[in-house]
Amino acid sequence: MAYTSLQFIRSTTKPQSLSYLQQWIRFNNWGSVVFLLLLVFLEITESRFLVKTLPGLPGDLPFTLETGYIGVGEYDEVQLFYYFVESEGNPKDDPLMLWLTGGPGCSGLSGLLYEIGPFTINYVNSTVENVMLEINPHSWTKAANIIFLDQPAGSGFSYAKTPEAYITNDTLSTVQIYQFLRKWLVDHPTFLKNPLYIAGDSYSGLVVPMIVLEIYNGNEVGEGPQINIKGYVIGNPLADTNGDYNSRIPFAHRMALLSDAIYNSTKETCHGEYLNVDPNNTRCVHDLQVVDKFLERICMPHILEPVCDTSYALKFHLFKRDLRSLDKTSADVPQLQKQWCRDDNYVYSSIWANRRDVQEALHIPKELNGIEWVRCNETLVFSTDTEPISYTHNVISAVSYHRKLIDKNCRALVYSGDHDMLIPYMGTINWIESLKLLVVNYWRPWFVDEQVAGYTMKYSNKNYNLTYATVKGGGHTAPEYKPKECLSMLTRWLDNGNL
Amino acid sequence: MAYTSLQFIRSTTKPQSLSYLQQWIRFNNWGSVVFLLLLVFLEITESRFLVKTLPGLPGDLPFTLETGYIGVGEYDEVQLFYYFVESEGNPKDDPLMLWLTGGPGCSGLSGLLYEIGPFTINYVNSTVENVMLEINPHSWTKAANIIFLDQPAGSGFSYAKTPEAYITNDTLSTVQIYQFLRKWLVDHPTFLKNPLYIAGDSYSGLVVPMIVLEIYNGNEVGEGPQINIKGYVIGNPLADTNGDYNSRIPFAHRMALLSDAIYNSTKETCHGEYLNVDPNNTRCVHDLQVVDKFLERICMPHILEPVCDTSYALKFHLFKRDLRSLDKTSADVPQLQKQWCRDDNYVYSSIWANRRDVQEALHIPKELNGIEWVRCNETLVFSTDTEPISYTHNVISAVSYHRKLIDKNCRALVYSGDHDMLIPYMGTINWIESLKLLVVNYWRPWFVDEQVAGYTMKYSNKNYNLTYATVKGGGHTAPEYKPKECLSMLTRWLDNGNL
Repeated sequence: MAYTSLQFIRSTTKPQSLSYLQQWIRFNNWGSVVFLLLLVFLEITESRFLVKTLPGLPGDLPFTLETGYIGVGEYDEVQLFYYFVESEGNPKDDPLMLWLTGGPGCSGLSGLLYEIGPFTINYVNSTVENVMLEINPHSWTKAANIIFLDQPAGSGFSYAKTPEAYITNDTLSTVQIYQFLRKWLVDHPTFLKNPLYIAGDSYSGLVVPMIVLEIYNGNEVGEGPQINIKGYVIGNPLADTNGDYNSRIPFAHRMALLSDAIYNSTKETCHGEYLNVDPNNTRCVHDLQVVDKFLERICMPHILEPVCDTSYALKFHLFKRDLRSLDKTSADVPQLQKQWCRDDNYVYSSIWANRRDVQEALHIPKELNGIEWVRCNETLVFSTDTEPISYTHNVISAVSYHRKLIDKNCRALVYSGDHDMLIPYMGTINWIESLKLLVVNYWRPWFVDEQVAGYTMKYSNKNYNLTYATVKGGGHTAPEYKPKECLSMLTRWLDNGNL
Repeated sequence: MAYTSLQFIRSTTKPQSLSYLQQWIRFNNWGSVVFLLLLVFLEITESRFLVKTLPGLPGDLPFTLETGYIGVGEYDEVQLFYYFVESEGNPKDDPLMLWLTGGPGCSGLSGLLYEIGPFTINYVNSTVENVMLEINPHSWTKAANIIFLDQPAGSGFSYAKTPEAYITNDTLSTVQIYQFLRKWLVDHPTFLKNPLYIAGDSYSGLVVPMIVLEIYNGNEVGEGPQINIKGYVIGNPLADTNGDYNSRIPFAHRMALLSDAIYNSTKETCHGEYLNVDPNNTRCVHDLQVVDKFLERICMPHILEPVCDTSYALKFHLFKRDLRSLDKTSADVPQLQKQWCRDDNYVYSSIWANRRDVQEALHIPKELNGIEWVRCNETLVFSTDTEPISYTHNVISAVSYHRKLIDKNCRALVYSGDHDMLIPYMGTINWIESLKLLVVNYWRPWFVDEQVAGYTMKYSNKNYNLTYATVKGGGHTAPEYKPKECLSMLTRWLDNGNL
C-alpha cells in the first residue's frame, strides 16, 4: 500500500479492490466489446430464485436464501443483483432491512460474507484451491430479513446494458435503489407490512439517509407501494466528507500514532483543514508530508492490524491468469502470506464467487458467464475519461439529509468501530453533535457478556431518535471485527432502542 | 473487579494478586508462627543451583538456568531468590540484565513466564490438573543474560527471617537490590565484564533509576566490585506517580472511553488533578464518580481485553483449599471461565509454582516447603497496622533520579504498550519531555516485519541518551502482548540504539 503525499488524508473510504484491471479489461478488449453487445440485446427481466445449496457449505442451507435481478432505470438498463435472506427468527414480523456495502462499488456479498450475513468464509480450512464456508452465528439475519444489494451497476453481479448506464453518482444511485426497493416490495408483497430499515456502512453511510428521505418523500406524494419505513442504520459512515476525513489526523494523534509536536504543528499550520489544502501553504504541506510518512504503513480500517502487502501482488497474480484456468497442481499457485492479514481472507471470496458452480448455484444467468465478480470495484471511483464506468461523489455531505429526517417519524442507529482510521469515531460524533438534537441519554458504556462493548448516547427530536454507539476495538466494518457485540447492538436497538 | 468512587484513578499499578489472604494466613495462625520461628533459626546462606529440567517441559532445558538465594541486610535477614538464565546468544559478551517485575510484590518468575523469559505457560494445553510449559521464541535471553529477581522479601520465593525485615520501602529495597547485585557479581565474576543493564516494568520503573544511580555512585566511591553499568530499560514504568496516574483520564478520553463532554467537564472542575482531590470540590468529586462509572469495567492493563470476573472467585477457591490436597477427580475442581481472559492464564503459574516437584526442581530448600508462591503479593501494598508485611511507596517520583543520571555515561530505553491505562503512554511522554533533553531523532515509526510496531524518539544530553518507544497495541506489560516486537526493540537498542 503506497501513499503519496497527502494521500493518507485523501484516500477514499472503500476497502481495497480485488482487481483494478478487471473492469478496464472488460471494456477495452475485443472480447469485452462482444460481451457488451451481448448485454445490450440480453433481456434479463426481473428474476428470483431460491438457493438451496452452496458450494463449500455441506448440506442444504439452514436459512432461506433468494437471489435475483431487478431492472431499474427507464428501460431497466441497470440490472441490480440481490441476495435476500429471510430472518432466522420470525420472518413474518421481523423487520426488513436493505443492506448496502460501502465503496462505492463493494458487492452486497462482501457485506454478507464478511460482516452481517448468515454464512462466511471458513478461513482456517480454506485454500486457494478449495474455499470452504461456515455458518456465522452472529448473523444479523437472526433478527431481520435482509436484502444484500449489489449497487450501483458494476458492483458484484450487477451490470448495465449500455456503457452510459454505468455512469452514475450519489443522487442517481439513490433514485435507482429506491426504484429497486419499490419493485422488490411489489414482487414480495408479504414483506410490505414489515418495518423497513435502510442500512449500510462506510461509503453507503452517505446514500442511506438520502434513500430514507426519498422513501419518506415518495410515501408522502403517494408513490406506490406505500413503504413501511421506520429508520436507518449506518456504521462508520461517510456522512460529512470534509469533517470525516479531517478527523483522521486528530484521531491518529489520540491513538498514539502522531506525537503532540507534529499534531500541534500540523493543526496550527493547516488550521485544522487537512483535506482541501492550499498548495501555497508550504508549512502545512510539509507537515502533512511528515504525517503521511508516519501513517503510510498503518492499516486504515483497523489501526492495530497489519497492512497486507502481498495481497496486492496476489490479487494481480490471481486475475492476470484466468482463475478458472488456474493450474491447480502448479507450484506457482499463489499462496497466502504467512503473516495473517485480513485482506488475504478477502481473496477467498473472489475465488469462490468466480467459480462456475457457485455462479450457477447463485442463479447468475448463463448468458452472464463472462461476468467476473470483484469484491470492491475500484474503477467506479478511480475513473478517467477513457473509462466508461464512473461514479461521481456528487453529494459531499449527507448531514443535510439527516437534518431533514429529523422532522420524520424515524429512528437511526449510528455506530463506529473505534479503531477505524478511515472514518474515525470523532468525525461521526462531530456531525451528530452538529444536528443539535436533544440528549436523551448521556454517554455510558453498553455491555455484552458483562464486558464493555462500547459507549452509547441517545438523542431525539420529537419523533426522530438517534442512538449512537462506539464498538470498542472494532474496525471500519465493525461487525466484521466484533460480530457478537454488533448483533447484540442491533437486536437491542430493534427491540427497544436501548443498548 | 469492583472499583469504588475514585478508585479507578487511585488503583495501584500492580497486576492482580493470586491470594490476598496468603501472607495474612502465614502470619496469623499458629502454624505460621511456627514457620516463622523456623525461619529465624534457618541458616540459608548464599546458594546457587543449576536447574536441568522443569516439570511441564519435556526433556532437558535448552538453555542454562540457575536459581539461588542471596542474603542481604546486615545479617542476611532478607533472603532474595533469583532465576538466572544465560544468554542463548553469546553469554560471554552479551549484556547482563537484572529484571525486576512490578508490583511491588510481583515475582521475577511472573516476568519470566509471562513477559521476557525463555519458557512460558502452554495455555492451550494446560489444565488445572496438568500445567504445561513451552519455549518462548521471543525471550529476551536471546540477547542478554538475565537475572529475574524476587524482590522485596515477600515476593515470589524471597522471604525475611524476621517480621521486621519484611518492612521495606523504595529506598530500602533499592539498597537491598544493589547489595544483591554486588554479591551476585562476586559469586559470578565471569559476568563482571559484561555490560550491565537494570530493567523492569510497571512499579519497578520507579526503583530502576534509583538502583542505577546507586550503582554509579557506588562505583564512584569505590565500592566493590566495580560494576560495568551501562544503563537501564523500563516499560510502562511508574515514574511520576501523580503525572502517571493523572494521565489515565486524558488517555481514556483519547481512546474513546470518555466523551468530550465528561472529559472537558472533569478537566475543568478538577483542574487536571484527579489523584489528590479536594473533597470539598463537589463538582470535581461528582465528575470523577461519573468517570469511574464509565471506566469501572475497563480492563486497565489493556483497554481492549475483557475484565476477568471469575478469576477472583477462582483464585479464592484455589487457595481456600490447599492446592496440594486438591481432589483432582472432584467435579468441583475449579475450571477456568469459558470466555478467555488473561488472568486465567496467571492462575496456572500459581498452580505450577506451588507444586512440590516444581519447588524441588527450582531448588527451593526443603525447610521452606511451607512457602507458598504468589504471582503478585498484594499484602505488600495494602498493608494495615495488624500486618507485619508492609511496603511503603516513599519515593513518589523517580524523575529526579532520571535527572541525576543525565550526568552519567548512561543509556536508557523507555517503552510504553500504548493500550495500557495503568501507566498510559501520555504520562510517560510527559515526564520524559520534562527532562528537557536534546531531541536527536524526532518521532517516527519503528518496524518489525515491515509493519509499524510503534513509534520512537531519541533524546540525549552529552553521554546520556534515552530512546523512547511506543509498542502499538501493547498493554501494561508490553512484551506479554507483543513478544516479537519487543524482542526486536531490545536487540536493536542493545546493538546500536536505533529501533
